[in-house]
Amino acid sequence: MQMIININGQILPPEKASIPVLDRGFLYGDSIYEVTLTYDKKPFLMKEHLDRLWSSASKIEMHLKYSREDIIREVQKTIDHFGIPRAYIRIIITRGEGEIGLDPNLSDDNNLVIIVKELPENPTWWYEKGVHMIIADLRRLPKKVLDPNLKSGNYLSNVMAHHQAKKVGAFDAILLNMRGYVTEGTTNNIWMVRKDRVITPPLEAGLLEGITRSTLLTIGKKHGIEMVEDNFTADELKSAQEAFLTSSTREIVPITKIDDELIGQGVPGPMYLKLHQIYRDFVRNSLRN
Amino acid sequence: MQMIININGQILPPEKASIPVLDRGFLYGDSIYEVTLTYDKKPFLMKEHLDRLWSSASKIEMHLKYSREDIIREVQKTIDHFGIPRAYIRIIITRGEGEIGLDPNLSDDNNLVIIVKELPENPTWWYEKGVHMIIADLRRLPKKVLDPNLKSGNYLSNVMAHHQAKKVGAFDAILLNMRGYVTEGTTNNIWMVRKDRVITPPLEAGLLEGITRSTLLTIGKKHGIEMVEDNFTADELKSAQEAFLTSSTREIVPITKIDDELIGQGVPGPMYLKLHQIYRDFVRNSLRN
Repeated sequence: MQMIININGQILPPEKASIPVLDRGFLYGDSIYEVTLTYDKKPFLMKEHLDRLWSSASKIEMHLKYSREDIIREVQKTIDHFGIPRAYIRIIITRGEGEIGLDPNLSDDNNLVIIVKELPENPTWWYEKGVHMIIADLRRLPKKVLDPNLKSGNYLSNVMAHHQAKKVGAFDAILLNMRGYVTEGTTNNIWMVRKDRVITPPLEAGLLEGITRSTLLTIGKKHGIEMVEDNFTADELKSAQEAFLTSSTREIVPITKIDDELIGQGVPGPMYLKLHQIYRDFVRNSLRN
Repeated sequence: MQMIININGQILPPEKASIPVLDRGFLYGDSIYEVTLTYDKKPFLMKEHLDRLWSSASKIEMHLKYSREDIIREVQKTIDHFGIPRAYIRIIITRGEGEIGLDPNLSDDNNLVIIVKELPENPTWWYEKGVHMIIADLRRLPKKVLDPNLKSGNYLSNVMAHHQAKKVGAFDAILLNMRGYVTEGTTNNIWMVRKDRVITPPLEAGLLEGITRSTLLTIGKKHGIEMVEDNFTADELKSAQEAFLTSSTREIVPITKIDDELIGQGVPGPMYLKLHQIYRDFVRNSLRN
């Protein structure tokens, strides 16, 4: 797997890319991040990802010494240096290093890390057969503890939920909120089709506002499809006509089984096929502009 | 501030101590840790801290390639190299580095970091005047999301609660659980005195089982003091006769104000004075043995 890492402007091979032990990202997960991909060496929907990065920074009152232009320039520099057309991009900003202590004022000089690595085409079976998800035992973080619509370095609950899925050979786990409603997968948003309406949980359910989620809500509506944000339970999801997930690097992936239950006929459904075609057309048009 | 850092057995000055960007501790907070101190170059209550480190590892199914003896040896080696009698010790173990992805199986080779730094004597005013705490707006993590009795690298909620306290000039913040009961401070356990009983929230409230907390429960009882684990609200805490906090590096610190309300007469009370004397005698005896 080819990879390069840009640390504060310096491009390094992964084995030489390190950050100080005293960095608050390492000590406390006091960091924010974004993940996108390139289509043909162009980072996709950078404006939207930078908007969300700034929103994450604001939620934890993290001062950013960089401008949006600084980050765009460093990302492009890293992609150009990498040279491979299809790449995964992870942008991490930490509150930097300083004296050990929770007080964020002990440090206020960010570290910026940009990881660019080869992104092989996703397996075709994901799209042709659909994937198996489980309902996680762990629940999604409530907003009273830490805003779930914040992409931070605190990811251990999601790590453990994903681990539970992997142990039974599933693709990923779906997290419910404390009230029992579906929120999201560990790194993706969840959708279901019921009576030909396409439904995804609302932000108030406690989830990360996925950029592919927002995009799909908008472009689906433009194509006359009824796209709705509404709460649903795990049982309602399991008895849906269709289900699928969205993420930047995976686009739209049909979910054909949840726990032990097949979704619909257990094969990718017509609404999934229609929406993924619409999404691919959107990507193609975005790249052309 | 003098400091040295041991990374996988190699002792380095802090400016040379770094960990790989791909370490899961940095990417996800997929790490566990302990903090203790030395009294006269001896690490205090290492058995108890190692018990808890192993308990944390077990809660997130982290494989540890080290034995307890390995860690004791590396800690002692670092303390000896440091040479200063009173030191802060932070032991961090991560799940190591590997391919980027939530699945813990992508890596299973730990990184071990031991930070040893000078620990100046705590300010005498903490003990003579007591400290001011606030009730945090954020709530403590519920067990359904991630076990709060786990010392991990996911600390951002506590960072933000502490930040709220610092902004109003307070010492620290007290976190309530989702049901409104007191759990703990961001890095300490909370106690109150009511009708001459000494009360601290039970583990079921959702808190980290502090080693000073456990020690004080045991030695207080031995001295005939009624030491109880029971739930209480913020209002009950504010109307207590006395309140105090415990932590390894701070021992016992009286709390004389919470939000805008004085606790008791607003000065350290007799029970605090008695318990801190008992605790100091315990420390002295432990070192002698």
